[in-house]
Amino acid sequence: MPTIAIMTDFGIKDGNVGVMKGVIWGICPDAQIADVSHMIGAQGVREAALILARSVPYFPAGTVQLVVVDPGVGTERRPMAARIGSNYFVGPDNGVITLWLERARAEGSILEFIRLDKPTYWLPQVSHVFHGRDIFAPVAAHLAKGVPLRAVGEPFTDPVEIDLPRPSRVPHGWDGEVIHIDHFGNVASNIRIEDLADALQSKDRIEVQVGRTRINGLVNTFGERPAGETVALFGSTGNLIVCVVNGDAATSLGVRVGDPFCVTVPGSARAADVEGRR
Amino acid sequence: MPTIAIMTDFGIKDGNVGVMKGVIWGICPDAQIADVSHMIGAQGVREAALILARSVPYFPAGTVQLVVVDPGVGTERRPMAARIGSNYFVGPDNGVITLWLERARAEGSILEFIRLDKPTYWLPQVSHVFHGRDIFAPVAAHLAKGVPLRAVGEPFTDPVEIDLPRPSRVPHGWDGEVIHIDHFGNVASNIRIEDLADALQSKDRIEVQVGRTRINGLVNTFGERPAGETVALFGSTGNLIVCVVNGDAATSLGVRVGDPFCVTVPGSARAADVEGRR
Amino acid sequence: MPTIAIMTDFGIKDGNVGVMKGVIWGICPDAQIADVSHMIGAQGVREAALILARSVPYFPAGTVQLVVVDPGVGTERRPMAARIGSNYFVGPDNGVITLWLERARAEGSILEFIRLDKPTYWLPQVSHVFHGRDIFAPVAAHLAKGVPLRAVGEPFTDPVEIDLPRPSRVPHGWDGEVIHIDHFGNVASNIRIEDLADALQSKDRIEVQVGRTRINGLVNTFGERPAGETVALFGSTGNLIVCVVNGDAATSLGVRVGDPFCVTVPGSARAADVEGRR
Repeated sequence: MPTIAIMTDFGIKDGNVGVMKGVIWGICPDAQIADVSHMIGAQGVREAALILARSVPYFPAGTVQLVVVDPGVGTERRPMAARIGSNYFVGPDNGVITLWLERARAEGSILEFIRLDKPTYWLPQVSHVFHGRDIFAPVAAHLAKGVPLRAVGEPFTDPVEIDLPRPSRVPHGWDGEVIHIDHFGNVASNIRIEDLADALQSKDRIEVQVGRTRINGLVNTFGERPAGETVALFGSTGNLIVCVVNGDAATSLGVRVGDPFCVTVPGSARAADVEGRR
Repeated sequence: MPTIAIMTDFGIKDGNVGVMKGVIWGICPDAQIADVSHMIGAQGVREAALILARSVPYFPAGTVQLVVVDPGVGTERRPMAARIGSNYFVGPDNGVITLWLERARAEGSILEFIRLDKPTYWLPQVSHVFHGRDIFAPVAAHLAKGVPLRAVGEPFTDPVEIDLPRPSRVPHGWDGEVIHIDHFGNVASNIRIEDLADALQSKDRIEVQVGRTRINGLVNTFGERPAGETVALFGSTGNLIVCVVNGDAATSLGVRVGDPFCVTVPGSARAADVEGRR
Repeated sequence: MPTIAIMTDFGIKDGNVGVMKGVIWGICPDAQIADVSHMIGAQGVREAALILARSVPYFPAGTVQLVVVDPGVGTERRPMAARIGSNYFVGPDNGVITLWLERARAEGSILEFIRLDKPTYWLPQVSHVFHGRDIFAPVAAHLAKGVPLRAVGEPFTDPVEIDLPRPSRVPHGWDGEVIHIDHFGNVASNIRIEDLADALQSKDRIEVQVGRTRINGLVNTFGERPAGETVALFGSTGNLIVCVVNGDAATSLGVRVGDPFCVTVPGSARAADVEGRR
């Protein structure tokens, strides 16, 4: 059975996601539909990009990722379908695929981008304000049902990519920033396990600073420390995170998305030298 | 595969909707189930009526709309199943179908109302307080599975209809009211595109007033104006709405459901004359 | 089609539940998946135990109950699958099954507990912090697909059971406590209809005290009394609850989980004598 994963900023109270499912099942009655999130901060393309990139690897091959975070609805932004590796994407071409695309390029995956311009795959009437229902849901359903990607529009090669905050290599380690705060209040940074590969042998000596809090050493998981203690560890997607065991780190530490998140790495003098030679 | 759409005021934390799905799949294992909303304001029959009427047209023929917003559970309110055009309804007979019914009548759709009185289609034990689980979910599942509507109870012809706020034609245009505030804070009125049909040639000259804010002219979509600007436009269901581009209009303008929402239409003197002649 | 019911404390904004569904459908493409709740209070094993026990009886035989409320992730707590009567359980062995297990024992149901130790049924890479995705979702999917319970690990006989608050028999009736507050603000106690079996003939004379509020007599359902009145009745799962008709009892009465909830039963002198003779 074909799978469609939906992410939007529509919230859950107004029925808009339900309506999109009605449209999908009218076209592809046996589609399995997963709600990834409908609580993306209003117009939060960056947040959606992050969640999308970390979700895609866990969906079956052929899944259609339907992502409608669309502040530009009804303007000239391009409606898009794409193949990115083993999954499809349908939604506005607004950069939400940036991080997914980076990883797909690094893996040498197949990439194909299509501008949606075949109304035969849309609802008969298209509103100015709800393309999720009128264009993107029906196109996603047709792809799930087996319509070839090339049938739904014309190829192009320059999808929008957005600037995502990157950590900087500095003499003492890495300067990153807070990119996500989850339901538990865990604070995720953009510093990844790959960035700290050389230092993982001495995790005890890695030092993390976020807000006014310094944390000495990384743990493997929450349960190693007593409730209430602030710990740093790699989250399930490989990003360095700070948590309060059984607590809410973001609130306790007064931290928000965009705040600095810095790591001091043991032996960073050598690392800095290496950096300097590049 | 049969489709069931569920709307309730149960919220999402207590497991009540999950239990209804368990009951449905016990009877009709292949039903596709869409959550339309479970965040209807407690006992908000009017809000549910609005969301239901605008959702139904997007679901496949044969979908069962299971709507349990039921302040009268366990009292003499009638448990109902109905056929309204191409969809079925199951839930308490409390007026939630009012707006859907109006539109169905206007289109000459098939209408059939059944009082549920055949316990063979219910759970073996029926509580006093959760008919959504004990009566309505099982009946919806049986209908989805193909049991004929007439089998689940006795026909009747007078379903409850509720008074919904209607806009009034006035000399300068229309006096309506705010009927819904969505997840984004967009403010929807009960004035519809049909009401303004004569004025649509001169959208620039239509004036909207809600709270203390006046908006001159309608736009087609949010993206035509810069972030932070207050705009008026037709929403995806044909109602006139007021939005702050990328913002929260209800909060910015201090507007609530029930507040006046007025439109001044160009050339309304002539319109008023016409009205006067009726 | 096999059914899986998911309960977590993950919230709905970060995509974690969607990812678990992706994993499940990659293994068992036709699984029906119900969200029971993802709003369990952070690390709320007791709350999850309560919701689980009252949900299970409404799911089809063979349903896999996938419950991930897991403050101990990555530590030595046992990953478990179980058969408890007609349903399966998958999740950390942390006591969340306590109440379900009690009822199953009382009914003489089949019980079988398995420690998960066969990585062939897990994702290839297992993180330290998201066993819901890496271990429990794939095992649930394999069971749903028909893999025998014994294949996923080694049997054991001593699952963790937690102390749940029990009501005490006292001379005047029962002293219980508040164990749940639902979406509507209804206040549920741990005093059950079975406890009051002898007194049900004279429901009018049963007296309930919660916080500073005394309620004389039980009703059958909300709708018997006018809006705003505080009533006591048996909820849909057989627990004694206090509600404000069309209102929020927990807020109105200033009541929280853990507060005392006491019942005075008519003729309790005799009942106390009986108790004293045991």
